[in-house]
This record gives sequence, structure tokens and C-alpha cells, in this order.
Amino acid sequence: MKRGNSIAALGAAVSGTVVLATPGVALAQGAGGETAQLFQFHRGQDVFLMLMMVAFLMLFIKRYEWGVTLATMLVLAVSWPLYMIGHVWVMGGEYDIEAVILGAFAAITLVIAIGVFLGHIPTWQYIVAGILFVPAYMFNEWFLSEFLNGVADTGGSILVHVFAAYWGWGVILSVRNKRVWESPMKPTVHSVSFVWLAAMILWVLWPSFVTALVSPEKIISSMIACYMAMTASALTAYLTSYLWKKKVDPLVYTYAILAGGVSIGASVDVVGPGLAWVVGAVAGVISAWSFLYLNDRLGARLKVLDSMGVNNLHGVPGLFGGLVAIVIANAPVGTQVAATFGAMGIALVTGAITGGILRLLGRPSIAMDDAETFSMEEARAETEETREEEVS
Amino acid sequence: MKRGNSIAALGAAVSGTVVLATPGVALAQGAGGETAQLFQFHRGQDVFLMLMMVAFLMLFIKRYEWGVTLATMLVLAVSWPLYMIGHVWVMGGEYDIEAVILGAFAAITLVIAIGVFLGHIPTWQYIVAGILFVPAYMFNEWFLSEFLNGVADTGGSILVHVFAAYWGWGVILSVRNKRVWESPMKPTVHSVSFVWLAAMILWVLWPSFVTALVSPEKIISSMIACYMAMTASALTAYLTSYLWKKKVDPLVYTYAILAGGVSIGASVDVVGPGLAWVVGAVAGVISAWSFLYLNDRLGARLKVLDSMGVNNLHGVPGLFGGLVAIVIANAPVGTQVAATFGAMGIALVTGAITGGILRLLGRPSIAMDDAETFSMEEARAETEETREEEVS
Amino acid sequence: MKRGNSIAALGAAVSGTVVLATPGVALAQGAGGETAQLFQFHRGQDVFLMLMMVAFLMLFIKRYEWGVTLATMLVLAVSWPLYMIGHVWVMGGEYDIEAVILGAFAAITLVIAIGVFLGHIPTWQYIVAGILFVPAYMFNEWFLSEFLNGVADTGGSILVHVFAAYWGWGVILSVRNKRVWESPMKPTVHSVSFVWLAAMILWVLWPSFVTALVSPEKIISSMIACYMAMTASALTAYLTSYLWKKKVDPLVYTYAILAGGVSIGASVDVVGPGLAWVVGAVAGVISAWSFLYLNDRLGARLKVLDSMGVNNLHGVPGLFGGLVAIVIANAPVGTQVAATFGAMGIALVTGAITGGILRLLGRPSIAMDDAETFSMEEARAETEETREEEVS
Repeated sequence: MKRGNSIAALGAAVSGTVVLATPGVALAQGAGGETAQLFQFHRGQDVFLMLMMVAFLMLFIKRYEWGVTLATMLVLAVSWPLYMIGHVWVMGGEYDIEAVILGAFAAITLVIAIGVFLGHIPTWQYIVAGILFVPAYMFNEWFLSEFLNGVADTGGSILVHVFAAYWGWGVILSVRNKRVWESPMKPTVHSVSFVWLAAMILWVLWPSFVTALVSPEKIISSMIACYMAMTASALTAYLTSYLWKKKVDPLVYTYAILAGGVSIGASVDVVGPGLAWVVGAVAGVISAWSFLYLNDRLGARLKVLDSMGVNNLHGVPGLFGGLVAIVIANAPVGTQVAATFGAMGIALVTGAITGGILRLLGRPSIAMDDAETFSMEEARAETEETREEEVS
Repeated sequence: MKRGNSIAALGAAVSGTVVLATPGVALAQGAGGETAQLFQFHRGQDVFLMLMMVAFLMLFIKRYEWGVTLATMLVLAVSWPLYMIGHVWVMGGEYDIEAVILGAFAAITLVIAIGVFLGHIPTWQYIVAGILFVPAYMFNEWFLSEFLNGVADTGGSILVHVFAAYWGWGVILSVRNKRVWESPMKPTVHSVSFVWLAAMILWVLWPSFVTALVSPEKIISSMIACYMAMTASALTAYLTSYLWKKKVDPLVYTYAILAGGVSIGASVDVVGPGLAWVVGAVAGVISAWSFLYLNDRLGARLKVLDSMGVNNLHGVPGLFGGLVAIVIANAPVGTQVAATFGAMGIALVTGAITGGILRLLGRPSIAMDDAETFSMEEARAETEETREEEVS
Repeated sequence: MKRGNSIAALGAAVSGTVVLATPGVALAQGAGGETAQLFQFHRGQDVFLMLMMVAFLMLFIKRYEWGVTLATMLVLAVSWPLYMIGHVWVMGGEYDIEAVILGAFAAITLVIAIGVFLGHIPTWQYIVAGILFVPAYMFNEWFLSEFLNGVADTGGSILVHVFAAYWGWGVILSVRNKRVWESPMKPTVHSVSFVWLAAMILWVLWPSFVTALVSPEKIISSMIACYMAMTASALTAYLTSYLWKKKVDPLVYTYAILAGGVSIGASVDVVGPGLAWVVGAVAGVISAWSFLYLNDRLGARLKVLDSMGVNNLHGVPGLFGGLVAIVIANAPVGTQVAATFGAMGIALVTGAITGGILRLLGRPSIAMDDAETFSMEEARAETEETREEEVS
């Protein structure tokens, strides 16, 4: 198909993204087209729930808990309706469950992406970031599903994770707010317990994400492949940390257990349980290595701070997942390589443009601190006062 | 139909409340009546989960976290089985999934309602409140579904939110426990992080609530309308707070983001995505305004304290939702006005009677403090001691 | 059927465990066999989510929060894939949704079981415990479903709860790590708020667990029976605590509200709503009594410490549930007694062997303390430092 043929063709293309077959087809025979969509109601809702859990996964910075949740709500509030409008009015799609889920994919990609530059920009700029993100995301969606032919990416290793990580890195490379280095990014015990909660719920819900748009007859086998990959990364992330560093960093482990799910996405509908386990095992090692070794070196060399270590969970394991699909899903080598690095490139460029615009719009008064947006005096003082009352 | 015709007729009526069509009808053709109910299993369960999250939405008072969760469990433990018994034995309904969901609606209405007077009564009195609530709720359910004809309220703006807010206010206006003013209602950072968690999960699950009893072919369009309204209120609640007050109060924002869901309930099955967004946007502004302006003035004038600000999320946006359905759902003006303010009136009167009885039964030894029910010395001391050990 | 007839027969047996009828049969008529399994997708996923919430139910020990979540992830990571392999390669089952759910049952049983000896062994030994657990669990599964005939245990009172509690006790009786007595097991306010969150989500999700493998036409009636039993235990657990001790211990109440769900499991598909309520009411009393009276006496006599009080929620109410099914489910007395105490015996013996092996493998450097595995200095110091900064 010719590139950029027409808006209408683009619409048809995007509405078919990562959809191998619509459940409607199989189910309409038995239960009618409208009700067929109900099979996807809860998996769609689960993607929204995962989006919220991604926020809590990033709640570990002691002075920046509420800022993370507010930023998440703002980018969700902007990006989902914008995607829906673009999907229907620009692309000629319909308001159906697949639109809901594709929109939720767009929104969760953005929530992952802002993890790279959380606290680097003023809160109101997340609204601007959301507006600038949606067209870039839709362009990449078109690139993967229509410009290229036969990309293996059912569960979004490339569409979601690679794009999220490198769009965020594009932004941060342009924004370059050095004041974030001054802000102490330390956790407290309960901040990290919230992260455990989020990571463990994300672990459970992951099959809903990777099977959200899979055809019905492949959903259960994809669920099994997903959990196989994630039990493997939950094991190897521990072994890597423990054998290499003797101690376990919970902010490495809670993230790296999810790497199996990130990497298996591209081939989840065709991989067997044993091979899925192997992919997940490697992903857990790669992600832990990225956190424990690559992260500081990359940040120091490029002189930027990936606030939440998005590259280590979504970037590197996403690239691995995209490329390993060449072997597993028998995807054409050239196409799959083009998809993986093309998405990375589109993300970096559109992210950098976004970051440039955000930089022009101004810096936050304080970096990575809830006090930029909220009146913190009372809650922080009460946190202290409570204890004094209690002990006296 | 004549008012109060017979118990049997009332039973038939109530069992049909807010049910536009039973999913069974559409699905029975394809999959058999028993299995048809399974489509509602998870949406029904989600209503219970939302009920629990309503408790955590109210967890911000530093000295009253466990009291909120215990009160929630007690009113749930009493109201759901009582509703089931009333539904089957008094009203002639059956033990089916619709009964489960209607009972969960009753229970969540009560959990919202106690938010008005949490901490004003001794813990054991929540059991009494639950017993007195159920007949009042069932009377209102009959009033909306059977006494009136053609009320638009598919998603419970009136049945649940208006009734909850004003039944609670009825109670508080009778109870008038002035000692709650003496108790410091201050939050800590992590108390509020629990509130964020609850608000964000409620935001995600809301479509399960408003579509729980919608006919299958309208569930997806209702889901889209619901998320459109709630992305809108998530945006306007921020803009209202930020533009008006410069700072954002998380205990306003986390509540007001849900106002779109409250207001869209009455017309969720007939509204289009664009109009749903507009309704949600207005609801977000109204709810934030109610928190930031109306709340203190109303409390001061009536000399009572709405512990959790229930009027600002459920009362005012509920009334708005009930009335805006006149335009959107093309509901008969007189009927819809009668429904909205009739429910408000029934709630205030039955709530006031309940409050009068509770007042006669005695005051709590301490208002709004976990120490009324739990041995707090150890946990509060340990909270302190831990820190001393850690730093030494 | 003859005991231990052949591996193939054992496989056929186990794959039919606690499955009264496969949903596939009823649904295949309308919607095709592959899609039929989708009805179980979310209930299966809910069992995993409950497994994670069991971890948070045990998060109350101030110095041992992360150790609990890490141990949970490790035993899950080992036991689920091992069960799947055993189910398919040893037992001749298939990779389908029932295998996923049976594997999740195995994993959640282990997560409950480790609650007995959490903190008594070094973290890496949870991997060994997982490897040793799976064959023992599968043997018990075969004992209940194939060696015995006609055991009533649809919702896993015996298979999951009795086995979990006494396998854990088998381990602890062999491990006998006295240093756990020295570790202060004190909660803080927010540790316990996490426990409330977990208990309340578990309460809601429980019907997914007890109906996960029930035939479709009995799922809704089982859901009603489950919620009836659990509203009852939520009420009687409070009344028992309040009337007997005047104060409520949240670490008794949050556990005992779930006792109704534990006890109703064995007969959930045949019990009516009223009788279910009665069973749940008794279970709530029994569980609270076990926490408030039996626990200390049993621990002192046997000179071991059941870290999380597993016997009080899963052991005693599980035994009660197994035996009360004789009356309710009309199960053959001899068979049901043999099942209940046979499972207890198998659990104690295989647990004791496991504990013996773990003891040989060495003790943890510190008992029941996150510092055994994690670098805690920073987070614990920051927890303190934050407060000093805030107040100054």
C-alpha cells in the first residue's frame, strides 16, 4: 500500500492495528454482534486499571507522590478523548470497544512515557504534552500497521513499550532541566510498598493487555504464554540481583518482574509456553542489568535523568521483544527490524520536538516536588505532628 | 399503575428498577438463560469493589483510618443480605444476578451516605443505621421505578448519588454531634496516597457501575459516554482548582474527577460521546466549586459537618445529573423533576428519622477517632518507635 | 478406581479435580469451544489477584513488609510453571484455562502456606520451598479427586485452605527457628491500612475463587451463597471481638471477615442463601475465637510461632467447612472425614519433610527483617529524615 495514500485509508489501517481478528466475527455467529463486544469490556477496563497502576509504580519518590498521580490523570484526561476523536473523525473509525482499547493503549503509552521526565516540567504542561503526543502516537500506529506489512506486535512490545520509552527520552533530551539533579529522589518504606502493590497488580493484569485485541481462539494460549514469561522474569530478576549484588533493590525488582510481559508482547499469540518462559527469563536478566549497570552510565553520558528508569523496563526489554519476534513469530527480518527501530526513531524525533516546545513554555518553580502544585505545609507538618502526639 | 397497589406488584416493580432490558433476553438466544447472567458476574463484582474503594476515598483523616473501613464493612454486612431478603421475601423477586447487583447498589449507596456522618456515632450504631436504611432505600427505589413513570436514571444519578447524599444529611441534621468539630481532621501524605489509589480505581471501574443493569447492546456506548464524562471532569476539576486557587487540593481533586461519572449516570445509555464530555466538564467545575465554595458556607449555616464532603461529589453533581437528563434523555420534565427532588425529600426525611433514633441510642465516647473502637496505643507508639530505631 | 493405577489415569483425574462440569459443555452449543473458555479468563485472573492480596494481608509487620511481597513473588514464580509442567507432562493434561486456574490454586495455596513460616527461613529458600511444595500439592489433589470418591469441595475449603494451613505448620514444626521470637512483630498504622485494603479486595473477589471451576449454571447461586457467608462473618467477627474483648483488633477482624468464604467453599454450589449465612456466621465466630484464644495456647504448647495466624483463618475454618459439608452437601460421612483429615495429614507430613530439608539448608542471618535481603539503611533513614525536613 502506498504511504500516506489518503486519510480514509489511514483510518481503515489504524482501526485494524494490532488486531489479528475481531472477536465479533467468531462470536457473532452465536450471540449477536453487539453482545460479542462484551467479551472485551473487562479486558479493556483492565488496560485503564493498568494505566493507574503504572502511576503507582512511580510513587517511590518521597517528595513527589501526588505529583505523579496528578500528572497521570491529566495526560489520561487529554489523550484518551483526543485519540477517540482522531480515530473517528480523522481516521474514519467507529466508537466501539476496539476504539476504547486502542485509546487506552495510547493513554497508557503516554503515562509510561512521562515517567522519563516526571518532575522536569510544570504540572500544567502535562496537558500540552498530551495534546502533542496523540498525533505522534497515531502516526507511529499507522507506520507499524499500514506503512509496514506483517509486523509482529500483537501485544504492543513496539507500539506501546518502545514508543513510550523513546518518546519520553526524546522529550528529556530536549528539556534538559538540570535542577532535577538537585532534588532528593529518595523513597520511604511505605512509598515502596505502594510500588510493590502496583507491580503485583500489573503482573496479574498483564494478560488483559497483551490479549486485549487478540482473536478469541488465541486468548487463552496468549494468557498462558504471558504468565509463563512473567513467572520467568520474576525469578531471574531476583537471581540476577541477588547473585550479582548480594542484596535486592526493590525498585529494581518490582520493575524487572514485569520485563517478561514487555518482551513477550510482540509474539504472545504464536509462542509456546516453554519458549515464552525462556524469553521472559532473558528479559528479566536484561532489565535488571539495565537498571543495575546501563542506567547510570547512559544518564551520565547523555547528561539527563530518566526519573523512573523507563528505559530499563520498557525500552531495552521492548527492543528485545521486538527483535526476538523475528525468530519466534517468524516475522520478515527487514520488516521487524524496520518496525522496531523505526518506532524508536519516530518516538525520539517527535518526543524531541515536544520537549523543545515544553522548554520554550517555561520551567517549574521547583523540580520534582509536590509543593510545586499542592499546598504541602499542612500534610507534611501533620505527618510529623501526628507522631509527636502519638508518642507523648 | 396505582400507588401501593400490592406487595406483589411492588415486588415486580422493584425487581425491574433501572433495568431497561435484561441481558438474558438477547443472550438466551445464543447461549442459554443461565449462562447469560454470567455477562453480569464481573460488573456486579466491580460494584462491590467500588464500594470498598469508596471507603478508601474517605481514608484521609489521620486519626480515623480504621474506623472508616470498619464502618464500611459493618454497613455492607447488614444492608446487602437485608436487601436480598426484602427483594425476595417481601417483593417477590428471585435470587439472581440482578438481585446481587441491586443489593450492591443499596449497599454502596449506604457506604456513600455514612460518609456524611462518619465519626459522629459509635461504631456499633452503624449496624442500626444499616437496618434502618434498607427499607428507606427500597421505598425510594419503588418511588422512582414504579410510582413515577419514565424516570431517566439508568446509571443511578438519582437512585444512588442523590439518595446517598441527602439521607446522610438527614442523619447528620438530627444527630448534631458538636464534638466532631473538636477532632482534628488532618491528613498525612500517605493517607492521601490511599485516597488517590481509591479515586483512580473508582474512575476506572465507573463504567461497570453505570452499565451494570443496561441492556447488552448499549453497554459499550454507555462505557464510552462514561469515560468521556470522566476524562472531562478530570480535566476541569484541575483547571477549576488551579486557575481559581493557584494550588490544587488533592482532597478536592481526587473527588471531583469522579463528578462526571456521577452526573452522566441518569442519561448514560442515550447520550453521545461529545455531549457526555460536556456534561462531565460541567460536573467537574460544579463539584470543585461545591468543595471550594459551597461546603464551608452550607456547613456553617446549618451548623453541621459533612465529614467527607459527600454533598460536593454526590449531592450537587447528582442533582445536576438528574435534571440535565431532561434535556439529554428527553425525559418528561415534571417526572424527572419529581424524581430528583422526590428522592432528595424521601432521603432527608428517612435520614432524619434514622438520625433521631441514633441520637437516642447514645454518643460515641470520642468523636472521629480510631481509639473509640481499637486499641491504638501500640500501633501509634510503634509508628513512632520505628522511626527512632531507624534513625539511631 | 484403584489407587495409583497409572500416570495417565492420574492425569485424567487431576485435570478433573473440583470441576463439577466444564463450562465448555454448556457454552459450546452457542459460541464455540475456544471462546467458551473466555468466561473463565477473568475469574482465573482474579485468583492471581487474590494471591497478591494474600501477600498484602500479611504486610503488617513493621520491619518485614518487602520480605513478604518478595517471598510471594518467588513462590508464585516457581510453583505456577511447575504445576503447569506437571499437569501437562506428568498428568497428561492440556494447556487450557482450567490448567491456568488449577495452577493458580496451587500457587495461592503455597502463598497462604508460607504465611505460617514467613521470616523463619532465608529468602532464597522460598524457591526451594516452591519446588518441594508442588508434588505434595498434586499428590493431595489426586487424593481428594481420584483416590477418594464423591468429596464435596467445589470451592477448595479442603484442597486449598486445610492443605495450606497444615503444610505450613508441617514446615514450621520442622524448622523451629527460635530467633523469630526475638524479632518485634509490631504493626504501624499504615501497615495495617494495607491489610484492610487487601482484606476488603479479597472479600470482594472471593466468589471468583469459589466459582472458578463451577459449572456455568451454578455460578450465580454460588456467588450469592459466598457473599451471604461473607456478610455473615463480617458481622459476627465484629460482634465476637466487641462483645468479648470490648475493643476490636484490626489484625483479627480483617482476617476473620474472610472466614465465611473459607468455610463455605466445600458446599458453595449446593447450599442455599440462608444456610450459607449461618455457616458464615459460625465461621466468623470460630475464626475470631481461634485468633483470640486458641492461637497463643497452641503456639506456646508446640513452641512455634505461626507468623500470620494462618491456622486461625485457613486451618480451623477450613476444617469446619470440610466437615459441615457432610450435612449441607449430603456428602458421604466417611469420605468427607477422610478427605478433611487425610488432606491435613498429607499436608503435615509433606510439610514436615520440606521443613527438615530447609533446616538443613541453613538459617537466615536475621529473622523476620527486611534487612536480611534488602539494603534498608537508606529507606529507613529517609523515612525519618523526611519528617525532620518537613517539620523544620
